[in-house]
Amino acid sequence: LSPEARQVKRRQILFLTRKSDVSLQVQLAVQLKDLIQSGQLGAGDPLPSSRELAAELKVSRNTVVYAYERLISEGYLNSRSRSKVFVSDTARELRSAAQRAAQRSKAQQQNSPAVHVPKASYSDGPKPFRPCQPDVQLFPLALWNRLRGRALRTTNRSLLHYNSEAVLGFRPLRENLAAYLRDSRGVVCEWWQIAITTGSQQALYLLANLLLKQGDRVYMENPGYSGAVRAWKSAGATMEHLPIDAQGMVFPALEKAAAALVYVTPSRQFPTGASLSLARRLALVNGAVNTKTWIVEDDYDSEFRYIAPPLPSMQSLDSGNRVIYVGTFSKLLFPSLRLGYAVLPKSLVEPFAELKTIAEDHGPMIDQATLAAFLDSGAFYSHIRRCRKSYAERQQAFLDAIAKGSLPLDFRYRDGGMNLTGFLPESCDDLVWSARLKRAGLDVPALSQYASVATERGLVFGFTAFTPTQIRRGVEKMLSLRLDRPML
Amino acid sequence: LSPEARQVKRRQILFLTRKSDVSLQVQLAVQLKDLIQSGQLGAGDPLPSSRELAAELKVSRNTVVYAYERLISEGYLNSRSRSKVFVSDTARELRSAAQRAAQRSKAQQQNSPAVHVPKASYSDGPKPFRPCQPDVQLFPLALWNRLRGRALRTTNRSLLHYNSEAVLGFRPLRENLAAYLRDSRGVVCEWWQIAITTGSQQALYLLANLLLKQGDRVYMENPGYSGAVRAWKSAGATMEHLPIDAQGMVFPALEKAAAALVYVTPSRQFPTGASLSLARRLALVNGAVNTKTWIVEDDYDSEFRYIAPPLPSMQSLDSGNRVIYVGTFSKLLFPSLRLGYAVLPKSLVEPFAELKTIAEDHGPMIDQATLAAFLDSGAFYSHIRRCRKSYAERQQAFLDAIAKGSLPLDFRYRDGGMNLTGFLPESCDDLVWSARLKRAGLDVPALSQYASVATERGLVFGFTAFTPTQIRRGVEKMLSLRLDRPML
Repeated sequence: LSPEARQVKRRQILFLTRKSDVSLQVQLAVQLKDLIQSGQLGAGDPLPSSRELAAELKVSRNTVVYAYERLISEGYLNSRSRSKVFVSDTARELRSAAQRAAQRSKAQQQNSPAVHVPKASYSDGPKPFRPCQPDVQLFPLALWNRLRGRALRTTNRSLLHYNSEAVLGFRPLRENLAAYLRDSRGVVCEWWQIAITTGSQQALYLLANLLLKQGDRVYMENPGYSGAVRAWKSAGATMEHLPIDAQGMVFPALEKAAAALVYVTPSRQFPTGASLSLARRLALVNGAVNTKTWIVEDDYDSEFRYIAPPLPSMQSLDSGNRVIYVGTFSKLLFPSLRLGYAVLPKSLVEPFAELKTIAEDHGPMIDQATLAAFLDSGAFYSHIRRCRKSYAERQQAFLDAIAKGSLPLDFRYRDGGMNLTGFLPESCDDLVWSARLKRAGLDVPALSQYASVATERGLVFGFTAFTPTQIRRGVEKMLSLRLDRPML
Repeated sequence: LSPEARQVKRRQILFLTRKSDVSLQVQLAVQLKDLIQSGQLGAGDPLPSSRELAAELKVSRNTVVYAYERLISEGYLNSRSRSKVFVSDTARELRSAAQRAAQRSKAQQQNSPAVHVPKASYSDGPKPFRPCQPDVQLFPLALWNRLRGRALRTTNRSLLHYNSEAVLGFRPLRENLAAYLRDSRGVVCEWWQIAITTGSQQALYLLANLLLKQGDRVYMENPGYSGAVRAWKSAGATMEHLPIDAQGMVFPALEKAAAALVYVTPSRQFPTGASLSLARRLALVNGAVNTKTWIVEDDYDSEFRYIAPPLPSMQSLDSGNRVIYVGTFSKLLFPSLRLGYAVLPKSLVEPFAELKTIAEDHGPMIDQATLAAFLDSGAFYSHIRRCRKSYAERQQAFLDAIAKGSLPLDFRYRDGGMNLTGFLPESCDDLVWSARLKRAGLDVPALSQYASVATERGLVFGFTAFTPTQIRRGVEKMLSLRLDRPML
């Protein structure tokens, strides 16, 4: 083909439009790659100079340079000298590899995956009355972003580096968090005892791997937090499910019935809401010290209390370094931040760090530095205060709305938290109630869903992520279902 | 005390200054807490109204409201009615808990921790010639931040929600990454086969837990990546260390010497830089398919090649779904982002998701959405191009500088990557050389440090994080040490 004929052909083949969402450079790269993959451009074929092609296509030269560079980087084009670009010799192999990839992908798709494929790319957020969900609209995102920008600016990109020294977290965050936990929860700790984790779930999983071996006995609350059950079971532990009463978990004397680890949510038992009495806290801690049992104290939402301040943390009562205090920022700030922590007894700091190095090394640094600044600035406290106020109102709105109906729900524990558990008489099947609510668009788990062995029946309502209006509407909808009457 | 006397006393005790870095509200909260903790304010003592105290201290009323709210939230104060604030009844217990905490912390400190306490809060960045470090100054941080802001704005905070559907990652990121891997590396995959992880290290650790059991045999390259060795060992596997030659890893026929898993860095063997030949790739993949062996292909920096495009990925040659392709953005973007990924055979997608749910649930969403946009915008490709150009220059600067000396370093593999391995004659002890370089402020690991069994000797130089000037100075310093002469 003569150069002129080539030019005409190219103009027929390449078609760029400014009306597309796709940038001109990406359009050009994709079309050129198609030509190579389809064989219309073969190995060694020269391409016009970027200046020439830009003029032909009436686009800026940078557009062409970009497209060429991308295809060079992907191996489709070769740049032998400063200005000459050719289809690369490996383009053919890349082409057949890409074709094979496409064909095999297609074949796999036709073998319709047994894989769960979520439809939505973005979370729609929780439906009423999904438990344990903060209202992300209350979060001071603009301030957070400003603090993030400032942290990046003042540290001259040092936050971008690999930082294996920070395997347990960014030091200023650990320092600020230690101060907060000491002051507000009486947690006995130095900053270096704190391990920052990906949510509290990672802390539980790593602790399971560190502390438990096949067949070890673990005491779990029943009903209880299923994420913890899964963590302990993944290490091969045997679960002993303990009942809950108004004073919290009912447990045998550890001296008589030994366990390797006790998992407990003393501030507000999850999901019932009962608080572990001071007498039981002391008995449990002393038993653990005497028998060298580990206690994992999961303090997942003690900041949200609306009436009385909470009892001292178990960790603060521990004289023998047996309590590991676990917490999270998912509920205080926003869930997708995925920052949690464990306060480790001194003897566990090194082994935990060693395991975390293997498990993922350190976590993302920029978020941790932002959170350190958020704690430092006092914004953290203002935010908790704002949430506490809103959540107290929402709890009241929920209880007021539900009082207008006559469902046999007994809300025993109302002093705080993000959820209210309505206990049901034994004649009511909470799973059936929950399923009927689900069909009506309400997300209200049954207490039985959190139980590994039979327990009291009830429904668990989260109220924190919903406005009073949403709450009232949700309750009205629930009341209209007449759940207390059998379905026909 | 009369109200007036109280007022005088308060003014003597509370002292706020605008000259401090600490905000007025934090100063006030801390001082009030001190008064309570020291017993100067006792349970039930009333505090002045916020209006009154603000006027006395000449600060805004909000300052006082904030301080009160913080202390209410921490349990030190109680607000019985709209305007009256008292020292809470539990203040005494909190006080003694805080005192105990402080005392025990002090005692722990005096027991001087055997814990490694890093001094710096911020990473100073790598020293020459630390391997595998990108130049974070090249990263388009301003653009990244704009994309992040846009992702947050256009999704109306849905990125902040808890999102258990995204346990394997944010869907648009998985889609964009699948397209990139198909096009540039011939990786055969659909988006739902991709699992986003906290760096590639988490992928290795979860795969170890998923695929290996006590005593399983794993083939590892020697020298090789120690993070991988640690992951396999943590699952109880037995290592078989295989040597490296100019065609990459030397391995026995899997049909004759079976293993549960083979770990390999075919694009550029870490740390020597040798590329696995096509013949060996085919032999290894076919052997794995025949014997149902897992292959973990770690493609940690194949984007940085300066001469020829790389051979097709092992995954693209795999006809039996035995290859797990692992990659990372730590080296392409910046290390502290901590985003890596694994491309899983269909059969592993569900088990991996299940394990990841237990291990940490999903990772932080905002970074993943930003990365999805970064890939989408084409900025990803421009950035790789910019880095490749700089890094090629730096590699040349390094080789030019070192050619001026006469050290017996043999740089065999120079076609790409972030590191250059200089092999040494057997008479030179690479550990001694590395130690001498370290004392001179240079971070140059010995090849032996990456080896589990005896191997060739050499030094591993990273050149990507340093400017040509830094590189020349570093090499000059090294040459001035006369490493080839014995120390006196």
